Amino acid sequence: MPARRDLPLVSADILARIRARRPRVHCITNAVAQNFTANMLLAAGAVPSMTIASDEIADFVARADALLVNLGTLDPERRGAIEIAIATAGERVPWVLDPVFVDRSAPRAGFAAALVARRPRAIRLNGAEFSALAGGPASPHALTRYAAENATVVGLTGDRDMVADATRVVTIANGDPLMSKVTAMGCAASALVGACLAVEADAWNATAAALILIGVAGEAAAGRAQGPGTFAAGILDALHGLDQATIVERARVES
Amino acid sequence: MPARRDLPLVSADILARIRARRPRVHCITNAVAQNFTANMLLAAGAVPSMTIASDEIADFVARADALLVNLGTLDPERRGAIEIAIATAGERVPWVLDPVFVDRSAPRAGFAAALVARRPRAIRLNGAEFSALAGGPASPHALTRYAAENATVVGLTGDRDMVADATRVVTIANGDPLMSKVTAMGCAASALVGACLAVEADAWNATAAALILIGVAGEAAAGRAQGPGTFAAGILDALHGLDQATIVERARVES
Amino acid sequence: MPARRDLPLVSADILARIRARRPRVHCITNAVAQNFTANMLLAAGAVPSMTIASDEIADFVARADALLVNLGTLDPERRGAIEIAIATAGERVPWVLDPVFVDRSAPRAGFAAALVARRPRAIRLNGAEFSALAGGPASPHALTRYAAENATVVGLTGDRDMVADATRVVTIANGDPLMSKVTAMGCAASALVGACLAVEADAWNATAAALILIGVAGEAAAGRAQGPGTFAAGILDALHGLDQATIVERARVES
Repeated sequence: MPARRDLPLVSADILARIRARRPRVHCITNAVAQNFTANMLLAAGAVPSMTIASDEIADFVARADALLVNLGTLDPERRGAIEIAIATAGERVPWVLDPVFVDRSAPRAGFAAALVARRPRAIRLNGAEFSALAGGPASPHALTRYAAENATVVGLTGDRDMVADATRVVTIANGDPLMSKVTAMGCAASALVGACLAVEADAWNATAAALILIGVAGEAAAGRAQGPGTFAAGILDALHGLDQATIVERARVES
Repeated sequence: MPARRDLPLVSADILARIRARRPRVHCITNAVAQNFTANMLLAAGAVPSMTIASDEIADFVARADALLVNLGTLDPERRGAIEIAIATAGERVPWVLDPVFVDRSAPRAGFAAALVARRPRAIRLNGAEFSALAGGPASPHALTRYAAENATVVGLTGDRDMVADATRVVTIANGDPLMSKVTAMGCAASALVGACLAVEADAWNATAAALILIGVAGEAAAGRAQGPGTFAAGILDALHGLDQATIVERARVES
Repeated sequence: MPARRDLPLVSADILARIRARRPRVHCITNAVAQNFTANMLLAAGAVPSMTIASDEIADFVARADALLVNLGTLDPERRGAIEIAIATAGERVPWVLDPVFVDRSAPRAGFAAALVARRPRAIRLNGAEFSALAGGPASPHALTRYAAENATVVGLTGDRDMVADATRVVTIANGDPLMSKVTAMGCAASALVGACLAVEADAWNATAAALILIGVAGEAAAGRAQGPGTFAAGILDALHGLDQATIVERARVES
């Protein structure tokens, strides 16, 4: 499958485009993740904005190149902002859904299901969240089916990441266990999917690229970190300094 | 008093239990502290969640092993969330109160007093906050009396920490001045009390353990830090890597 | 112009006063910036508070030595808080306005213009924000005129910073490109203006000092950083450790 073999180079190329074009990524994200997410986007070369105020968000989304909808700390103001943002985004602004903790709260699961029907270009989540949303455990087959049914791309992160659309599925074996010891790492990965969607029309490429880039950056950072605190700073450093040679050398894309 | 002499080993044992059981700690905490608090809990081995949305918080607290109620940036949504969370916690989920800046705002002081009557297992605060709440300066005797009157444990942090219940009081002489130069350090300490309460039924042990662990981690981090920025990262590294030998060797528990 | 030549020494003196007096700076600021802003103020020696709750903010501002009004993530609660805070501040508590992203949202631009009429002692912004607010591109002449018309001080940050009041204008050539790769760096600079206003009656001196201090700290941090993650920690370390000799040696104040 040549598409898979190309992914490391495609990822490096997408990162180069982000750095050149500096896309604006508007993020509706949870209060815990806002700062780290903004710094991850800046480290990649994108320009974050974060307002959720109902009278401002349409202006921000209309001027954005991608949109992140993250369901963490989902209060009434964020719900309202999400409605306006998705309506404003329409077909022009690609958006990615991160259904954080959808396995912990029934109202949130219902809201997430309604959002999936609004056609996000990609959904980034973990195994528990996928199970809650799709009604069964994650597997390459289950991801492909869910992606096909909802006309989207699923990017599942965990010990190994999987990215699927209706016809393509790939496993990414990058990353480091310290990534699960820093809050908002998954949220930041979703924002990075948004940055990649801003410069790459193929949402499967964009989602895989984001997970490859953050995974490779995580491995580079883990080699220099003394624990989760220095790792959180180090992954920003690594993403900021990532070059094509490192991406191609370290990306572990498997069938 | 053998209980006091045991505290370093008890603290190491509580940390081992957190790492083994990965308790869920739901945090209602201020916007400034959310990220650092989540990272501190992850560094200890616990699993944080942070929503304050009124239609979700009962689901989160019902599935949690401990609850943190922190009064910083106390807006109407947080007040409402606190009511639901405490009612949901009932007797099953232990909770810790952090009455941040209760000395600066009369409405907050009144709200905090009402919460103390709801029986938190522990209260973590500083000297100014204790004075505002208890109506007089902090001393071993004042702490013991306040703890007895309110059937709780008081964990007071400062140059030296004190932990008291109705019959036991101990001084902990760990920590470093850089801890006061990182925002949300006290808030994170309170969250760590929550993590300890999740795995230790004796709330006095749990509160003392949390303050010993963060104090010892702070000393280890200070030795490698170049200022408050690297210190904030370093204390997460240190807590993540803390072993029994270091805890027992460095804990300074005094009468 | 002797005033300009004095600025490095004046800046060092203002920092010494912040460390000695530990002024309280109440910050109404955006959710992304709260943590980093609080840590920047602590690193400088000031004491931050951050509540935006409408029934508490008057108590906090009444006990504060300076106020920051930052328009990021401007929701209805923050708008309400700003009204109360400015009314409480009156003439006694100096305040600084940071009209974040005023170029991206028409309602925000209108709100910002109304706030300028309330006489902030200083306004800290970037070039795009100045253009949106003043109706034309930034230049020494445009800044001076805007400052005169509005009886305030304008602190404009960018590749080179400019600080102007009705009669004085100065260029500061400190800083490092990594400063634009860390979210909330400008917001934190505005908070530092607040801390300087708390101890220095001449708002032009205070604003210039804040930008010199953060710029010199940024250069020191850049020399040791491996990217934006370690830089964010390093600038806090550098500000915390800044001494008079370094400030005087490194400050690049130009006409």
